[in-house]
Amino acid sequence: MKSFQTLRYESGKLTLLDQRELPGKTVYMDCYTLEDVYTAIRDMVVRGAPAIGAAAAFGMHIGAMSEKSVSYATLLHIKGRLDESRPTAVNLSWATARVVDAVKKALTDHPDLARSSILNLIEIEAQAIYNEDVVACKAIGDHGSTLIHSGDTILTHCNAGALATCEYGTALGVIRSAHAAGKDIRVFADETRPRLQGARLTAWELMGAGIPTTLIPDSVAATLIRDGKVQCIVVGADCIARNGDTANKIGTFMLSIAAKMYDVPLYIAAPLSTIDLSRASGEEIEIETRDASEVTHIGGVRIAPEGVEVYNPAFDVTPHTHIAAIITEKGIARPPYSKSLPALFK
Amino acid sequence: MKSFQTLRYESGKLTLLDQRELPGKTVYMDCYTLEDVYTAIRDMVVRGAPAIGAAAAFGMHIGAMSEKSVSYATLLHIKGRLDESRPTAVNLSWATARVVDAVKKALTDHPDLARSSILNLIEIEAQAIYNEDVVACKAIGDHGSTLIHSGDTILTHCNAGALATCEYGTALGVIRSAHAAGKDIRVFADETRPRLQGARLTAWELMGAGIPTTLIPDSVAATLIRDGKVQCIVVGADCIARNGDTANKIGTFMLSIAAKMYDVPLYIAAPLSTIDLSRASGEEIEIETRDASEVTHIGGVRIAPEGVEVYNPAFDVTPHTHIAAIITEKGIARPPYSKSLPALFK
Repeated sequence: MKSFQTLRYESGKLTLLDQRELPGKTVYMDCYTLEDVYTAIRDMVVRGAPAIGAAAAFGMHIGAMSEKSVSYATLLHIKGRLDESRPTAVNLSWATARVVDAVKKALTDHPDLARSSILNLIEIEAQAIYNEDVVACKAIGDHGSTLIHSGDTILTHCNAGALATCEYGTALGVIRSAHAAGKDIRVFADETRPRLQGARLTAWELMGAGIPTTLIPDSVAATLIRDGKVQCIVVGADCIARNGDTANKIGTFMLSIAAKMYDVPLYIAAPLSTIDLSRASGEEIEIETRDASEVTHIGGVRIAPEGVEVYNPAFDVTPHTHIAAIITEKGIARPPYSKSLPALFK
Repeated sequence: MKSFQTLRYESGKLTLLDQRELPGKTVYMDCYTLEDVYTAIRDMVVRGAPAIGAAAAFGMHIGAMSEKSVSYATLLHIKGRLDESRPTAVNLSWATARVVDAVKKALTDHPDLARSSILNLIEIEAQAIYNEDVVACKAIGDHGSTLIHSGDTILTHCNAGALATCEYGTALGVIRSAHAAGKDIRVFADETRPRLQGARLTAWELMGAGIPTTLIPDSVAATLIRDGKVQCIVVGADCIARNGDTANKIGTFMLSIAAKMYDVPLYIAAPLSTIDLSRASGEEIEIETRDASEVTHIGGVRIAPEGVEVYNPAFDVTPHTHIAAIITEKGIARPPYSKSLPALFK
């Protein structure tokens, strides 16, 4: 069914599907050093919050392998470098923190733990993050599928699919599960400027899964929502605050306004690793601004005048009041999120 | 100040700035036949409702010149062909009708009017349409400038500039007039997928006019509107119905939702030739759907998978309830438009 693997790890070698080349070419890139992993995440060879988290966890192992002595301080340093690669996706710092914490706990119990044992522990923890994401996405899909009815047309934005996770996907996991359950569904995929993840990745992934998909420019979505041609919107997330405010790919907020005004439910699909209860609201989420060339050039072709000023934020924050439900591997959270989200962690 | 001319006519030859090549190349295309003009409008060598209207008026003259006998029926036939080129821009059929009506009236008074006199009459009428658009745009700019305050940041979508009209522009005319009046203004230009008129044309035109401009992907606009970074939105129009419902470039409706929700005024700037009082509402406006390749390819580079289904409407309709004012050469219309718009024609 699936003809690609987003990321794969053999001790010391992280292999990433180079998503910048899709859909034209299916090329894999091998990362052997911490800087390889850092650059691959920064340059979006691998993208999508859960996939970034798993890649960074394996990056922790690669980084630690190159150190003669692997201390808590060493790992914090490696984590710091990886966390810099993309500031908004909370799964990244969540995954690197989880690796560091596992080692910290082991060192507390066994201060003389051998380097080889520490490296082994890091690899096991990273692999656990990967494996748990696979299971979580399937559970998200199955929970979310209960919100989808046969005959529905679903709008999605960016790519929250198997390409954005270790397997299966979050928003596209919901769509995959509904399709697998035999529901007759259709999808509108926003092309998602500037990096066109919808056109390049989501359309490709859903066509490969045999799910009827229509590609649209981002600015078409509002008319479809108004005209009753979309029964729900399902997207992923890069960071969810305690009150349900959600950072996701730029353009999600715009969809949320149309959803609110025309009473179409907007669902966020994300694993618990995307939820950061320590942030009270979206105001505490840092929004990454990316290079102007993402807007001025497409496929190496210049489309805007030389020297033009560009504002290119990678994400926006959708207020919790515009979100009908947050679909996680532990079930579906409904407003008020300040109560329902913490409850998922118990 | 202006280093280009959108369209120029010498008897039998319509010269168009090929806007598909901007901003990389400034290339002019000559049209010598009715089919040349038809194709140039259809393929968007010339675009923008007022510019299309003037081009089609000159196209009436070019078409008539190739006819041995120029009757009312002949002209209706030429008009029919030109009107097919773009179905939504009402200025097109308005301009061709105006030429036909001028000849009809002359033939009623002088049934034996010589072919050369009829051709002369057509050319004069077409040139009048051109000249009146120049004057109208300047008046639109000056009326609209009264709505702009020093310190304002203005958001615009697509290109309603000198490139979209015979000179000066409608929405960008308002911006030009405010700038010329010494007001300290800044502009955010939506890139306007799929054809990128904002990135390719508006950014280029405003940079040439020395007006500070920042280019953004379309989906960024909603966050700027919410965050108080935009004081007003000014756009052009392709067709305005009697009740104020306005067809304009796809994406305008989306902006109008954000404007409505966050109480930022959306202004439409257009000449009276864009207003069609015979249409009661936006439901009577036909929306042109364009080729999938506009979405799947950019500058010849394929960005979406082979065989993907695409929905690519060129326009959307913004309801009159989302429009704060309609700026015309006869003054500024405010709601209720069903009263204020007809009053402009008196």
